[in-house]
Amino acid sequence: VERKDAAFIASSLEGVDPADISLLLDEADSEQAKYVLEVLNNEISADVIEEFEEDTRKEFLNELSSEEIAQYIEEMESDDAVDAINDLPVRTREEVIAAIKDEESAAHIQELMRYDEDCAGGLMAKEMVVANVNWNIQQTIEEIRRQGENVEKLYSIYVVDDNEKLLGKVSVKKIILANAKTQIKDIYDEDIKSVETYLDEDEVADIMQKYDLVAVPVINLQGKLVGRITIDDIVDVITEQAEEDMQLMSGISNDVEEDDSIWAISKARLPWLLVGLIGGTFGAWAIGFFEGDLEKNAALAFFIPLVMATGGNVGIQSSTLVVQSLANKSAFEESFGRRVGKMLLVALLTGVVLAAISFGIVLWWKGGEEGLPSVVAISLICVVMLSSFMGTATPLILDKFGINPALASGPFITTTNDILGIIVYLAIANLLLL
Amino acid sequence: VERKDAAFIASSLEGVDPADISLLLDEADSEQAKYVLEVLNNEISADVIEEFEEDTRKEFLNELSSEEIAQYIEEMESDDAVDAINDLPVRTREEVIAAIKDEESAAHIQELMRYDEDCAGGLMAKEMVVANVNWNIQQTIEEIRRQGENVEKLYSIYVVDDNEKLLGKVSVKKIILANAKTQIKDIYDEDIKSVETYLDEDEVADIMQKYDLVAVPVINLQGKLVGRITIDDIVDVITEQAEEDMQLMSGISNDVEEDDSIWAISKARLPWLLVGLIGGTFGAWAIGFFEGDLEKNAALAFFIPLVMATGGNVGIQSSTLVVQSLANKSAFEESFGRRVGKMLLVALLTGVVLAAISFGIVLWWKGGEEGLPSVVAISLICVVMLSSFMGTATPLILDKFGINPALASGPFITTTNDILGIIVYLAIANLLLL
Repeated sequence: VERKDAAFIASSLEGVDPADISLLLDEADSEQAKYVLEVLNNEISADVIEEFEEDTRKEFLNELSSEEIAQYIEEMESDDAVDAINDLPVRTREEVIAAIKDEESAAHIQELMRYDEDCAGGLMAKEMVVANVNWNIQQTIEEIRRQGENVEKLYSIYVVDDNEKLLGKVSVKKIILANAKTQIKDIYDEDIKSVETYLDEDEVADIMQKYDLVAVPVINLQGKLVGRITIDDIVDVITEQAEEDMQLMSGISNDVEEDDSIWAISKARLPWLLVGLIGGTFGAWAIGFFEGDLEKNAALAFFIPLVMATGGNVGIQSSTLVVQSLANKSAFEESFGRRVGKMLLVALLTGVVLAAISFGIVLWWKGGEEGLPSVVAISLICVVMLSSFMGTATPLILDKFGINPALASGPFITTTNDILGIIVYLAIANLLLL
Repeated sequence: VERKDAAFIASSLEGVDPADISLLLDEADSEQAKYVLEVLNNEISADVIEEFEEDTRKEFLNELSSEEIAQYIEEMESDDAVDAINDLPVRTREEVIAAIKDEESAAHIQELMRYDEDCAGGLMAKEMVVANVNWNIQQTIEEIRRQGENVEKLYSIYVVDDNEKLLGKVSVKKIILANAKTQIKDIYDEDIKSVETYLDEDEVADIMQKYDLVAVPVINLQGKLVGRITIDDIVDVITEQAEEDMQLMSGISNDVEEDDSIWAISKARLPWLLVGLIGGTFGAWAIGFFEGDLEKNAALAFFIPLVMATGGNVGIQSSTLVVQSLANKSAFEESFGRRVGKMLLVALLTGVVLAAISFGIVLWWKGGEEGLPSVVAISLICVVMLSSFMGTATPLILDKFGINPALASGPFITTTNDILGIIVYLAIANLLLL
């Protein structure tokens, strides 16, 4: 298919969505991709480039001259253009911006590049329809016509005063149903949610989700309307956030994917594995204290894994629940004490059930031999309580210090609970069996 | 504030967003909530009820008569109305539907109740603007006016033929800019993504996310347009899905939240804790086989937790990466063999690093005593390889059988790896030390 048959490529990709072409080309090499995109029209090619995975895009843009990149960039909305430019080496960035012919879009891109990628300013696009409060519907429709080319999706028209201060919005429905002479100031809706440029992307996501918004205007400190964020970008933020939390929980320290290099994946995995190793060493050291007990009764060692694993599981369960209720900030506003207290009650209930069952198992297997069933059962209750406490308190404390609490559901809590579990179990054995 | 001062409540809540009122009332008791909502106007009250947490809503609706419920239901969009009705006991449902005065919305609700909650049919709303392909713009605007009351958010107008078969869409921008006499058939866009009623909600979310859609029309098997799904419902699906995966990973078997009852939380947590307990018992039994070795050399027991914890961590890391790349279906389409092969290379690399470090630690601490450093190091490499294999293969196999692969990142893989780790470690010790 890639044998330079331009007409065939063009006709077979006609009507195919850019998102699908992008997937197809993600697997092809950069030169083939370049050839295909030259055959397609610039607007579709720009959409395809937007949809590329970050790695593919970097590699692909590397193959192009600054002028070629600029051509594609001009077809993108300003926020996507900035994302693409940020993938380039610093020198190429300057060249590309200089090569953009449309001065307005070059200015927009330069403005947006000033903002941090993770805040509202970094998510917003400059493309939107803005109406002055003193206009009438006819003038607004003219503005829509003028902006029409740039604004792909039209949801609301934002209303500003002469100083570009955001006053409110008019829905497209009202525009369609209104008379051409109607004044904007008579029909606009003052009740509008907006976000400041410096707001963190997670908070923007929370606000848009809470109020079911498809687009939110962005204002600067002076209240001036500077851009808008659309829901598709927020959906990506939410998905990324969830992936990041999951990776934190599983002890992967960088954002890697399965198709990254072996080296990148290993590097992302080693830090927490090392923490686990050090934890394991402390565990070994703790067991060392009780070497005498173990020599007297080797069966004691049999149940170390059982107690340890239960502590680990309980800790992760508790912290996940806390992390999730922290994420729904609104859902559950209890004091630290009450949360921990409740978790301890749950722990007591589950702990007693587990202890009873394990008492039965150990009794049946080993007999009453030297009180082993009681040691295992009592240890389990203590370990479940302790792990629950750690699992509940750690994310709450991390959150207080502004650290992502999902970290606490990962290897950190498991490692800590492992060591604590071993010590508790062997200490109880030591007390009861001597 | 709740001292029945109606005027005060009404004035202080004026202009407050229903989502915020809902949060406020979530904490109040049902009777107070009922009083406040009676003071507000019906439309706002309906919005507030929509935004309630499921538990609060159930409790609250319980306090109302069927007629009162019906009044609020009439103000909701059909998809939210169905969600609210589904919270009611079966008998009340019938009464409420009978009490709805608007026959059209009663019919809509009954139609939507037929669909499963987790598929496209269960997510869609009946409120949308539909234009016949033979209309002109003027007729379409009349339709928008007629539907205007019901359709809160207007994104696209769907175009159908005389048999209500979906043909395409017209953007609101085109409607605004077109001449009143323009024929729909001359300007509509045939290129439209739609979903079938039976499509699973996760797939709907994937499609909307991939193509950056804010709304997607739903068609039945005959291609007839039956409803539309808006992005706000999909954002909820994505969030819930992420929460569910996180809970699966942490071994919580029902969907519980931190503010559920102690009993509900315990019940959701016990099943996987029991699996862990049984796993621990198998582990104990495995160690029992090597009782002789342990009695000869108690120091052997010291490193059981270290080997076990490392295996557990590696398994979770591997499976999380696989689960995430399965979630981005598009991202990485490799054969089973290549995926496992790659993961084993990563495992070899990380395993060797961990082995070298642990060799150093054990050597320094225990000396060369009976080859213990080599046993720990060799075991670590084997366990890391084995756990990686399990962590990679398990989610792929679960996915093949249509089971949510996130299950494999949880206690299931940890428990399996614990037991395997113990056996590998002690077997290697047995071989090398005898």
